[in-house]
Amino acid sequence: MFHSRRKFLQYSAYMGAGALAMPLAGMAFPSQQKKLGIALVGLGGYATNQLAPALMQTQHIELRGIVTGTPSKIPQWQEKYKIPEKNIYNYGNFDEIADNKDIDVVYIVLPNSMHAEYTIRGAKAGKHVICEKPMSVSVKEGEEMIAACKKAGKQLAIGYRLHYDPFHLEFIRHSREQVFGKVLAVEASDGFRAGDPNQWRLKKALSGGGPLMDVGIYAIQGTRYTIGEEPIAVTAQEFPKTMPEKFKDVEESLAWQLYFPGGAVSNSFSTYTTNVNRLFAGAEKGWFEINNAFGYSGQQMRTNKGPLQITPINQQAAHMDGVALSILQNKPANNVSGEEGLRDMKVIEGIYEAIASGKKVDLKI
Amino acid sequence: MFHSRRKFLQYSAYMGAGALAMPLAGMAFPSQQKKLGIALVGLGGYATNQLAPALMQTQHIELRGIVTGTPSKIPQWQEKYKIPEKNIYNYGNFDEIADNKDIDVVYIVLPNSMHAEYTIRGAKAGKHVICEKPMSVSVKEGEEMIAACKKAGKQLAIGYRLHYDPFHLEFIRHSREQVFGKVLAVEASDGFRAGDPNQWRLKKALSGGGPLMDVGIYAIQGTRYTIGEEPIAVTAQEFPKTMPEKFKDVEESLAWQLYFPGGAVSNSFSTYTTNVNRLFAGAEKGWFEINNAFGYSGQQMRTNKGPLQITPINQQAAHMDGVALSILQNKPANNVSGEEGLRDMKVIEGIYEAIASGKKVDLKI
Repeated sequence: MFHSRRKFLQYSAYMGAGALAMPLAGMAFPSQQKKLGIALVGLGGYATNQLAPALMQTQHIELRGIVTGTPSKIPQWQEKYKIPEKNIYNYGNFDEIADNKDIDVVYIVLPNSMHAEYTIRGAKAGKHVICEKPMSVSVKEGEEMIAACKKAGKQLAIGYRLHYDPFHLEFIRHSREQVFGKVLAVEASDGFRAGDPNQWRLKKALSGGGPLMDVGIYAIQGTRYTIGEEPIAVTAQEFPKTMPEKFKDVEESLAWQLYFPGGAVSNSFSTYTTNVNRLFAGAEKGWFEINNAFGYSGQQMRTNKGPLQITPINQQAAHMDGVALSILQNKPANNVSGEEGLRDMKVIEGIYEAIASGKKVDLKI
Repeated sequence: MFHSRRKFLQYSAYMGAGALAMPLAGMAFPSQQKKLGIALVGLGGYATNQLAPALMQTQHIELRGIVTGTPSKIPQWQEKYKIPEKNIYNYGNFDEIADNKDIDVVYIVLPNSMHAEYTIRGAKAGKHVICEKPMSVSVKEGEEMIAACKKAGKQLAIGYRLHYDPFHLEFIRHSREQVFGKVLAVEASDGFRAGDPNQWRLKKALSGGGPLMDVGIYAIQGTRYTIGEEPIAVTAQEFPKTMPEKFKDVEESLAWQLYFPGGAVSNSFSTYTTNVNRLFAGAEKGWFEINNAFGYSGQQMRTNKGPLQITPINQQAAHMDGVALSILQNKPANNVSGEEGLRDMKVIEGIYEAIASGKKVDLKI
């Protein structure tokens, strides 16, 4: 990935201390002896299939606790990850985690509408918090979460794993170093065909919204870190529902456009009807693109000059190691901070406002 | 391309008689002995670099005349293509082509705002007409062109070469045969960085509009023939101009969304600032995509299962041969007809109306 120390330093400057985790994982840090302990709060699919396995590969953080409302899940987690009885909590006694010195960090992997409550409770318990995206279901909640972590003197990081992914780092490099000149237009889309009509994603009380909240947020993030500015306005369109009963609570498909102060623009699409997953940047003298851009794996990057060979990594491990290092070094991971999550929430609220009003909405981010 | 006669017949049924040109080019037709004669009206870049060379490869039509307002261009065309003096016209004496039995077809390759006048004059001169896209700069003009050709008993075909391109035929097959189920969403974009600030494309009096008229129309066509229905509504957004002096006359970048009666939707982008060129279809069980979709060459098609090996052809030769056969057989090429061109003009006027009003515009196509 890094062809020279100069290039690496440029990355570091952009990415914040957190990015150190990946390229320097093998180097000696003063704090490397100590591993942080993490508890996963919520044992759904992402915790079970991605985060826990990734924590077998991390160097600066390890799985020591779980929080679940489903006691039947506990034995297999205990067996697989050797989690002691005293590090297992439910949502009733979660706050007692304050007294548990094994746990430095809690990772909130609950449905979106529960992110704020558990982030705030985690901070009050004196723990650093990693919270899955979207950080909350509103800007107001996001601000409360940031304030709570600040008050507790603890870091708040959002689960923006792609900030540690070598494909996205190379994509950002193409933009920052203007490999093909200035980026003028971004196309970013993320969607999939939502199966189970009973899943929490389709219940607004749990999800806060439809594909925009769930995966469209990656397209927003991708657009923002590609262009490297904050959008000043947004237009958005909701498409008519083809399955109104299934999507009675949340949007089925939508599109939006972001307007940036330097003149760059973006056009995006997100849906629960079909697979679409791409980050494209058109620049003055060429283009670059990641296909399957936002998935846990399977990224392919190419430019108008051809495909790039990039070795994939475990995104979740790199992300959690990055956040752990930023905690160990007491240097907030600005690339994935609560403030960064809040900016996406402001765009999301702008998109919903633009859909409701049918008008272009000014953004103050 | 065609794995069986059954599949071929399905194509033919969809594509109209014109599509016969490519797959059956080697077979004996009753009318195959006779080649039609064509005159190119306007000797700009497309006529010079694409159409004239393509006419060296056509089997049912050949270059016999030219119409130009630039006498200095004549000697090299005469030398290269052996065009007799009597088949060379200027815009003053163009109507005298009525008396020239060598010329069966005129191909209008002038700036957009001149398409209507020369199509109508060509029809009045008793010639079949191929007219470059966009067929006109307004729906009204398009209707007049169709009426004039109908009155003269002559065919009107638009320069929609991609209807004869094997990548796009395979793309359409993926939709029609529902290889991955029903198509639910299309993303189609076409744009390039317009260089010369003095080119006719940037003068509304000649072009009728900006990138939408010039290349965005391919994204509209592509969306319509992928989904196989007519859109019932459109929303659209014009982006602020980053080069207001250069683009004082026409839009610089824009996006639009089409709404189809069966529930499929599309999102598109077109620009004169950067290269973007893609046709993507998301279906129930997979996706398919052509990159460099709308260029004269360089198409690459792939699906979620991987890349497809398709042998490129000369698009312009296939298109002109297809139109020629439809004339020889007196079976209008519905896939590239004036009526088909008019449908795109209705979408284009809808897009401009949606931008001007800021509202969703109903389409009647």
